[in-house]
Amino acid sequence: MTPLRLALVPGEPAGVGPELCVRLAQRPRTHALIAHGDPGVLMDAAGRLGLALELVDPADTAASQAGTLGLVAFPVARPVQVGQLDVANAASVIGALTAAARGCIDGRFAGLVTGPVHKAIVNDAGIPYSGTTELLARQAGCDVVMMLCHDDLRVALVTTHLPLREVADAITPAAIDRTLRIVDGALRRDFGIAAPRIAVLGLNPHAGEDGHLGSEEIDVIAPAMATLRDAGLRLVGPLPADTAFLPAKLADFDAVVAMYHDQGLPVLKYSGFERAVNITLGLPYPRVAVDHGTALDLAGTGQADPSSLFAAADLAARLASNRARSA
Amino acid sequence: MTPLRLALVPGEPAGVGPELCVRLAQRPRTHALIAHGDPGVLMDAAGRLGLALELVDPADTAASQAGTLGLVAFPVARPVQVGQLDVANAASVIGALTAAARGCIDGRFAGLVTGPVHKAIVNDAGIPYSGTTELLARQAGCDVVMMLCHDDLRVALVTTHLPLREVADAITPAAIDRTLRIVDGALRRDFGIAAPRIAVLGLNPHAGEDGHLGSEEIDVIAPAMATLRDAGLRLVGPLPADTAFLPAKLADFDAVVAMYHDQGLPVLKYSGFERAVNITLGLPYPRVAVDHGTALDLAGTGQADPSSLFAAADLAARLASNRARSA
Repeated sequence: MTPLRLALVPGEPAGVGPELCVRLAQRPRTHALIAHGDPGVLMDAAGRLGLALELVDPADTAASQAGTLGLVAFPVARPVQVGQLDVANAASVIGALTAAARGCIDGRFAGLVTGPVHKAIVNDAGIPYSGTTELLARQAGCDVVMMLCHDDLRVALVTTHLPLREVADAITPAAIDRTLRIVDGALRRDFGIAAPRIAVLGLNPHAGEDGHLGSEEIDVIAPAMATLRDAGLRLVGPLPADTAFLPAKLADFDAVVAMYHDQGLPVLKYSGFERAVNITLGLPYPRVAVDHGTALDLAGTGQADPSSLFAAADLAARLASNRARSA
Repeated sequence: MTPLRLALVPGEPAGVGPELCVRLAQRPRTHALIAHGDPGVLMDAAGRLGLALELVDPADTAASQAGTLGLVAFPVARPVQVGQLDVANAASVIGALTAAARGCIDGRFAGLVTGPVHKAIVNDAGIPYSGTTELLARQAGCDVVMMLCHDDLRVALVTTHLPLREVADAITPAAIDRTLRIVDGALRRDFGIAAPRIAVLGLNPHAGEDGHLGSEEIDVIAPAMATLRDAGLRLVGPLPADTAFLPAKLADFDAVVAMYHDQGLPVLKYSGFERAVNITLGLPYPRVAVDHGTALDLAGTGQADPSSLFAAADLAARLASNRARSA
């Protein structure tokens, strides 16, 4: 059987992404990993870590062997100083991302694993970029949902990187409907959960306390949930955010859908930051990213924790395998 | 030496408050506990639990003995059916609260411990009441801050029970200044921490990401913090809420100040709901409440977990003792 092929983008070449990819390459696996980046940057990272790395043609079956990565080369424009951002090298990062995602859309790869990208340096290079999730959504022409997870805690967001004062107006029936349908569909198809149960948080404290602390639960969230329940979704809520995450309650749910960033992510990160990953739901392929930044201060020290990238690759392989089975 | 005297209000007589107070009374202690409530309700709860309880005059030294509570009687108007709210009995709850707090203001008690009150039944009885914290603040004529805590995690809120769409406008320089001064003062005087370090969260995701995701951090929060640093406060932030709660970061701080309810409380409750308590900072006396509701469905079953009330009483005694020492 041909092994699953996953596209891997190390991300910012001066950050920890390349060395984490070298560590990832060492692990025994059944899927092929095809890196999209600069070969010299990867080999230098391997050298600093004292680890063996062989870069092979993307079609080579050796791309699924430990110690080896398939490579699609996106050379940097200027030599990389570890820990030092360089606007000249931003284009190769975005080129690698775009090509890897295109390969997923075209079916050459079964999923995408991405390391950290540095938003400011990409923008400084004159490339419009608000985040990899947004880039991938635009390229694929899809509505997407950001979900962060580790082990069995999965938190998806209705709104993501929005100033808090704009959040309430963004909680519309369409946003609730779209988010919950995408989450439900991904839990079924990608996670292989036959009848997922989803906890939906309220927008306001105490989920609005019967309208005393805000009306969006009554006017927007509950009606949108009612429509979706009629369509077969198993939804519970709107629930107060402060108690929905109690461990005994979480055990009842396959995912929690939060209305906004700082309502949903603190518990997720508190309870398992090292192992947390960021999944983009709604794309025509599974995409899983690390849930940390470029960590420029750690780059080159060999101290960066690879747990998140390991978890991202493992999960991407699992999601891709489930999706292939259900296709 | 005269033992510390704490006022204790069981709260809603049909809920779990009375039985939790009976369990609290059993514990050996060095401070006197003076219950403010209906004696029959307390004795009935003791009978159902099969526990001994003696109610004595508030001035009796036996009020600090295990198995005994001092009593200031606030009789219910109608016999209590466990688990059944009765508007006729709401006035005795509010009367007990008000009198116990008055005793604290007058120096007859060193601190106040409160059980759960049922907000809706008080309002149904025609008594304006938005919460015990607000009632106590108005009675004492003070600005107060709500802090929830367990063990070594303490989270205080700049805004509390406000619809989310009103939060951003409530984050004013005055609100930040007032909250941080009250938290700092309480950590020093009540908690006995000589030079407390306080983590201050931003309002927006990623603490506004240098103004890209909201401007309140730059316009409001950071300038207010700068003024307070000049006044000697040790403040860190504004920090992104999703990573401020990472366990390794929390170890650096004596308290976290969140801008709003659902930003600050999910991690607190996730990590220790049973032991969590609600402290009102800024009053002329320490006040600690349980961090749970009336649990009408559990009332009378003997199954209600007394951990939060035990923690509240222990903490109130510690805060009162520290305050007495620093007076």
